[in-house]
Amino acid sequence: MEKKIINLGIFGFGCVGQGLYEVLSKTKGINARVRKICIKHPDKQRPIDSSYFTTDQHEILDDPSIDVVVELINDTEAAFQIVSTALRNGKAVVSASKRMIAENLRSLYDLQQLHRMPLLYEGACCASIPVIRNLEEYYDNDLLNGVEGICNGSTNYILSKIFEEHQDFSSALSRAQELGFAESDPSLDIEGFDPKFKICILLLHAFGTFVKPAEVMNFGISRLNDFDISFARQRGCTIKLIAKCRKQNGNVVTYVLPHLVPRSHLLSDVQNEYNGILVESTFAENQFFVGKGAGGTATGSAVLSDISALTYNYRYEYKKIGQSNPLSLTQNLQLKIYLRYTEAGQVDLEDFDSLSEKYESSENRYVVGLINLSRLREASWLKNPGVNILVMD
Amino acid sequence: MEKKIINLGIFGFGCVGQGLYEVLSKTKGINARVRKICIKHPDKQRPIDSSYFTTDQHEILDDPSIDVVVELINDTEAAFQIVSTALRNGKAVVSASKRMIAENLRSLYDLQQLHRMPLLYEGACCASIPVIRNLEEYYDNDLLNGVEGICNGSTNYILSKIFEEHQDFSSALSRAQELGFAESDPSLDIEGFDPKFKICILLLHAFGTFVKPAEVMNFGISRLNDFDISFARQRGCTIKLIAKCRKQNGNVVTYVLPHLVPRSHLLSDVQNEYNGILVESTFAENQFFVGKGAGGTATGSAVLSDISALTYNYRYEYKKIGQSNPLSLTQNLQLKIYLRYTEAGQVDLEDFDSLSEKYESSENRYVVGLINLSRLREASWLKNPGVNILVMD
Repeated sequence: MEKKIINLGIFGFGCVGQGLYEVLSKTKGINARVRKICIKHPDKQRPIDSSYFTTDQHEILDDPSIDVVVELINDTEAAFQIVSTALRNGKAVVSASKRMIAENLRSLYDLQQLHRMPLLYEGACCASIPVIRNLEEYYDNDLLNGVEGICNGSTNYILSKIFEEHQDFSSALSRAQELGFAESDPSLDIEGFDPKFKICILLLHAFGTFVKPAEVMNFGISRLNDFDISFARQRGCTIKLIAKCRKQNGNVVTYVLPHLVPRSHLLSDVQNEYNGILVESTFAENQFFVGKGAGGTATGSAVLSDISALTYNYRYEYKKIGQSNPLSLTQNLQLKIYLRYTEAGQVDLEDFDSLSEKYESSENRYVVGLINLSRLREASWLKNPGVNILVMD
Repeated sequence: MEKKIINLGIFGFGCVGQGLYEVLSKTKGINARVRKICIKHPDKQRPIDSSYFTTDQHEILDDPSIDVVVELINDTEAAFQIVSTALRNGKAVVSASKRMIAENLRSLYDLQQLHRMPLLYEGACCASIPVIRNLEEYYDNDLLNGVEGICNGSTNYILSKIFEEHQDFSSALSRAQELGFAESDPSLDIEGFDPKFKICILLLHAFGTFVKPAEVMNFGISRLNDFDISFARQRGCTIKLIAKCRKQNGNVVTYVLPHLVPRSHLLSDVQNEYNGILVESTFAENQFFVGKGAGGTATGSAVLSDISALTYNYRYEYKKIGQSNPLSLTQNLQLKIYLRYTEAGQVDLEDFDSLSEKYESSENRYVVGLINLSRLREASWLKNPGVNILVMD
């Protein structure tokens, strides 16, 4: 494998872009240099020389001397257009746009096959944790059963502050935003969309199945109240927002839901902006990866690893696609959940297969019971902001 | 990268060899078949067809149809001879013999360069955890500061049983042996030699430095008594045998010593035969990898991943060697330790730079103080079986 010098064209110079620039300028050993950075607002004060910047994307996309396009912008549609044009123009691409990638996995896969150009996106899943690379390279032959974990740094930061430091939700959220852990639209984090994009990407690398984010249930932590928090504490648990995919009778099931996690569980120790991913396989059994899941340099270091991998001609092989019978998505999974509500009639308990606990007071009610994911996903009562759920298994 | 079908010649059919065979026979997708297995005792009952077996190593080493030699035997010298002959004969090699690899790192590196044949040994470090692969591939450009963790499944199993289930040392050791987690010579585990071999290997892939195992201090857990255990409990800690290497003023320091680990530390949750490795880098910050560190199928799955990687022409690049100024080994590191002894005069407290605690009773004495690793390593009083140490930082 020959090592080459590569010229980078970067789109976006926000938190991650600047993190990358910083990582790149302090790291010897990598044969890559930044040639151009395409930005939206030319008048903004920038920490580096203005000759680097352009607002014209063609100065990067049509420049034959640029080998690698690094796409780090927030606009999903524009990002897809940039990435697909770059691949078509024979450029390798590194991207950290989880939403854009998750929503366009099939097209991006096809574009890579058609133009035989690599697209790497380790920074899009769990920032600094090399989880895609490990699923691609290391678990290609072991019998993988499931991948699950905490893959949103912002909500995990909020939950840590609530559980470890008794802070309230909104001040923890503001602090996460100040620290640059939160998405610009915080609902992407706290409603569980961001981890859903990530689990859709991981699902493809784990099982070779293409799943649209819209097909996957997500429910976040925005409705968490003091009653829920005491309930978790009383049971010796913390609460974590968990994204999960696993094999299930020849199909694959996936969702993002808040979970009650016992204090003895590995995931309960993943604190603040850290992410943690559990990979379960038949022979290697449980593997657990923990690392920073948010912040400019954590994501920047993942983007840099992808750039470095390109200097060695690395590309995702997507080995699971076509390796065995493709697994289809199923919503048929029984979950044990805690359902908290305020008034009788606010929820339809008939949707449950069985109930094991029921609590009523003048202010709060809850049940614990078994419900099928397909039912839960379609339950209209779940839209009521006075209702919250936590998975208990 | 073209995928090829490979023919395997295996040396050894013990715990790991059988684990590999099992993993291999249940895994589709890998284009590898076992052609021959070389064993020492032809009369032993074997779980598979006798036509696979031979006692003549030349039937594998001189067979041009065999592409990959898998070396899984216990005898260090014989293992080195097999691996080096295989490389010379143009065969790729997979090995899980940590001692043999650690003691011959330089020669094995030279042989790989000379004959341009790959030698992979992920199974030699932390069994199922892909730590070498991650150090090689993922951290090649980030500024790595240190690698440390629990990399001996057998001692971690013993310590878990002591701390979590209040078992005594010897019954925990026997159980570890029954379960196949312990080396055939248990002193390799409990005196900390086995994790030392592993950290020497990790050190090369992390920092590009060749270090001989004899240059590295190791002290195990065999002298742990009830007094030490209560001391740890009183301080809210558990005890873990930790192997460590880290950058230190342009040098690198490495050792294997038992540590007092606070219950809030990530490593304290690594239980039983699991291993846990913390990788600290400037930008990605802390990454934590946990997985099964002992047992036939855990190591077998790592060996299989190496075999699979060979079908894609993977080889270690040893990128750190020559990437920057080579780091030399230093023993100049101040450690805070707990030193337990029974009689005054049994230890030389003058070796300490300073003492912060001193305890005496009719039966036990201890001090807590700062001591330099170079002093500790050479201290003759440490040979006294009535003396024990625990690192406290």
